[in-house]
Amino acid sequence: MVINAAQLCEILKGELVGDGGQKIHGPSQIDAGIPGTVSFLANPKYEDYAYTTGASVLIVSRHFQPKFPMTASMIRVDDVYGAMMTLLEKFGSNGMPEPGISDLAVIGSNFDGGRNIAIGAYTVIEKGVSLGHNTVLFPQVFVGHDAVIGEDVVIYPGVRIYPNTVIGDRCIIHSNAVIGCDGFGYKPDENGHYTKINHVGKVLLEDDVEIGANTVIDRGTLTVTRIGRGTKIDNLVQIAHNVSIGEDTVIAAQAGIAGSASVGNQARIGGQVGIAGHIHLANRIEIQAQSGVHTGKYPEGSRIFGYPAINYMDYLKSYAVFKQLPEYMKRIEELEKQLEEIKKNTP
Amino acid sequence: MVINAAQLCEILKGELVGDGGQKIHGPSQIDAGIPGTVSFLANPKYEDYAYTTGASVLIVSRHFQPKFPMTASMIRVDDVYGAMMTLLEKFGSNGMPEPGISDLAVIGSNFDGGRNIAIGAYTVIEKGVSLGHNTVLFPQVFVGHDAVIGEDVVIYPGVRIYPNTVIGDRCIIHSNAVIGCDGFGYKPDENGHYTKINHVGKVLLEDDVEIGANTVIDRGTLTVTRIGRGTKIDNLVQIAHNVSIGEDTVIAAQAGIAGSASVGNQARIGGQVGIAGHIHLANRIEIQAQSGVHTGKYPEGSRIFGYPAINYMDYLKSYAVFKQLPEYMKRIEELEKQLEEIKKNTP
Amino acid sequence: MVINAAQLCEILKGELVGDGGQKIHGPSQIDAGIPGTVSFLANPKYEDYAYTTGASVLIVSRHFQPKFPMTASMIRVDDVYGAMMTLLEKFGSNGMPEPGISDLAVIGSNFDGGRNIAIGAYTVIEKGVSLGHNTVLFPQVFVGHDAVIGEDVVIYPGVRIYPNTVIGDRCIIHSNAVIGCDGFGYKPDENGHYTKINHVGKVLLEDDVEIGANTVIDRGTLTVTRIGRGTKIDNLVQIAHNVSIGEDTVIAAQAGIAGSASVGNQARIGGQVGIAGHIHLANRIEIQAQSGVHTGKYPEGSRIFGYPAINYMDYLKSYAVFKQLPEYMKRIEELEKQLEEIKKNTP
Repeated sequence: MVINAAQLCEILKGELVGDGGQKIHGPSQIDAGIPGTVSFLANPKYEDYAYTTGASVLIVSRHFQPKFPMTASMIRVDDVYGAMMTLLEKFGSNGMPEPGISDLAVIGSNFDGGRNIAIGAYTVIEKGVSLGHNTVLFPQVFVGHDAVIGEDVVIYPGVRIYPNTVIGDRCIIHSNAVIGCDGFGYKPDENGHYTKINHVGKVLLEDDVEIGANTVIDRGTLTVTRIGRGTKIDNLVQIAHNVSIGEDTVIAAQAGIAGSASVGNQARIGGQVGIAGHIHLANRIEIQAQSGVHTGKYPEGSRIFGYPAINYMDYLKSYAVFKQLPEYMKRIEELEKQLEEIKKNTP
Repeated sequence: MVINAAQLCEILKGELVGDGGQKIHGPSQIDAGIPGTVSFLANPKYEDYAYTTGASVLIVSRHFQPKFPMTASMIRVDDVYGAMMTLLEKFGSNGMPEPGISDLAVIGSNFDGGRNIAIGAYTVIEKGVSLGHNTVLFPQVFVGHDAVIGEDVVIYPGVRIYPNTVIGDRCIIHSNAVIGCDGFGYKPDENGHYTKINHVGKVLLEDDVEIGANTVIDRGTLTVTRIGRGTKIDNLVQIAHNVSIGEDTVIAAQAGIAGSASVGNQARIGGQVGIAGHIHLANRIEIQAQSGVHTGKYPEGSRIFGYPAINYMDYLKSYAVFKQLPEYMKRIEELEKQLEEIKKNTP
Repeated sequence: MVINAAQLCEILKGELVGDGGQKIHGPSQIDAGIPGTVSFLANPKYEDYAYTTGASVLIVSRHFQPKFPMTASMIRVDDVYGAMMTLLEKFGSNGMPEPGISDLAVIGSNFDGGRNIAIGAYTVIEKGVSLGHNTVLFPQVFVGHDAVIGEDVVIYPGVRIYPNTVIGDRCIIHSNAVIGCDGFGYKPDENGHYTKINHVGKVLLEDDVEIGANTVIDRGTLTVTRIGRGTKIDNLVQIAHNVSIGEDTVIAAQAGIAGSASVGNQARIGGQVGIAGHIHLANRIEIQAQSGVHTGKYPEGSRIFGYPAINYMDYLKSYAVFKQLPEYMKRIEELEKQLEEIKKNTP
């Protein structure tokens, strides 16, 4: 797609300063700013690049006043970030497969497929599966029997969906994610040998959930492992059996949530966080990366950090002392010496 | 499957209190307790649910005496947990594919397959592979040349088995796990460029091992990476080259064990634990989640925690002080001030 | 391959001590030392095994003088480690597929394939992909449209390459790795619902990069996520959108690097390390396993540890005190008591 600066300005409902005839081939980062592209100044700390970028057009906030001359044309908008998202939509080649079912897919009995679905080569669908309108299964996907998948869903190559999984509308699942495998449950006998606990529950992804690449979500033991509406899960995350995640929660890469724990709505869980089993976290909890959460006692909206996690600022204050512990310990020894001295000299 | 309460009671060799004619369609959790289902009271802390659950039948321990009236029928058994496992077996639709080799599988030369094996569509088996009786390869599996796979094994969609891997009887491998890839070994030259060390070893999974989804086990450099009999490994775990894991050990999700380390029998390794390379851990070690283990010096049966890991209770005690460090530091400062005062006033 | 000790010695340009006619079937570890194999004494701490190993030939350093009688023949070489690598090359059955394009692969329009390429069964290549000479795609690989893959590349079963990815020469990508999926970027609206940010950037793997099994590398938002020449990445690693990794850097298993961070050349990143977003690390940084890196302020060549990471030795010293905190706290209390006593007795 090629577009000129004036057309771009109209799309963004902005105000153009400079040459409207400049041709734009795509977006770029302000610091890499390439001629023939449009860049963005969203964060004021990058303002210096505004004067040096090679990009032809720069989108800035409505109130931006340059301090130095600029070579790029400017488009002033109310919401720079929103404008960037609009442009990414415009220029993005989404590369979705055309609707149609590949001759090289295997589809089981009692298949119930909606309008405009796409099913790629070497995808295998077991019996009794239903697929909503406009849903796309890329090549090499596996869908177990009796799974129910909603409308406008996108499932990338190599995703494995175990039987009975339920997936809502507009979900996106990235490559090689595994949804609905058995939970990690065993019963030890008197000799310490483990017998597997059969898992008959399932996974429920509500509407508008996105699941990252190579993430794993275990099915429930008896009932359901649930990911709430609008929740977004990054790559390589582990969600164990019987977990319940609320709505509009974000979980960063490599976090892990142990069995039967629950997380509330609008929580923010950092990368590599671990959450212990059987605890229940309030809404809007914010957990710093790598923290270990062993209890659910934090009030709604808490920001926590550490291992085990405590209040964020408290952890930072304690850690500031931790870094100086050897020195503080010398002060204790010095105190002891002086006190000894005083006692010796006191009759 | 539908069954009535009296039949259920007979299967479980229990004692029925209440209506034996109630129809049961499946199991449920006590707190979700749905009419027409059977629930379990295994943990006394959930006793309150016994009086409110909508489940039609509740399985309780032999000595359970209700304090309030119950609407559910009761089945008293010696081992509630064991009864639950029996029922999960009964009601679980295991959904295993029927025996048979798909026309859409590719099978290399010198294949040696047992009785009643199942090989799914788009599975690829290289030359010289052997497969024991009743073993199931789901669709989209890859098995490298000369791999030896035992009897009654189940390998889920998307598992990749590199050449020469040896897998014992009754192993289960979940989707997208990778068994036998090259270890992370390189030799730096004088310029800091790395040359890959060729790996000629293999992976050995002994009998009754279960491997979680997206877990990775590297082959040995020269010899073998070994997972001992009965050991269970959760999702997204990393086992590096030349590692040896003992028997009846459990390893929770996202743990990682570095090269040439060994773990004993009946160990319990928490989620996200890291174990350093070249250390040797005793039997029955219990490692708390997220711990970092840098030495093998802990005695058999130790319970450890922290980063680096120390005795569990010691870590908790030190961490209790850590949380109050800023306050303790003020006490040191106060002591210094007072001592200064005393010295000033002492002739 | 079978070879005798004298031939082996010639290949390694070594000096033979003992019987040159012994037949060697392969390499083995010194402690497992199996008759008919060649072992290595690279690390002096394993010297005891030299006198007990069952291996027929032992490769030792040029200056090694046995203190006790040995049953194995010796080959003295300048570089034991280098000799080991040479032998692993010799004895390793690399098992690479023969050149040729499987009839069971699906290849899109405008495919540009080099000489001697191999493409396995059930691999899917979308339109506009180019593949350099001698490159191997194993079965069950997915390559998105317009990807550009160099020469002598090996891509193992189940790897998923999203559209527009660029892969240099001699790269190796292990099973079920995912390259180029969308980054974890969303814009929250006033109600806390998240809207996905479309990602139009790509992933660039420069020459001689190796990527471990089940590792995930997100594409750039606008431009590129870059892995520099010669860099090696282990299994289950997360590289977020817009990250840039320098050359000849090694990243151990389960490490995670958050969005828009950069890592320099010749860095060494331990297992399970987390690196925060938007920070820039100097060259030759060495980060201990499980550390959390929240800032880029460390000088070139620093060795760091902890959570958040500080200087390696400083962390160890502080942690040594941490382990004794309960005892130190008693000493503070004792000081307070004594001081109180002194003040009481001072007129």
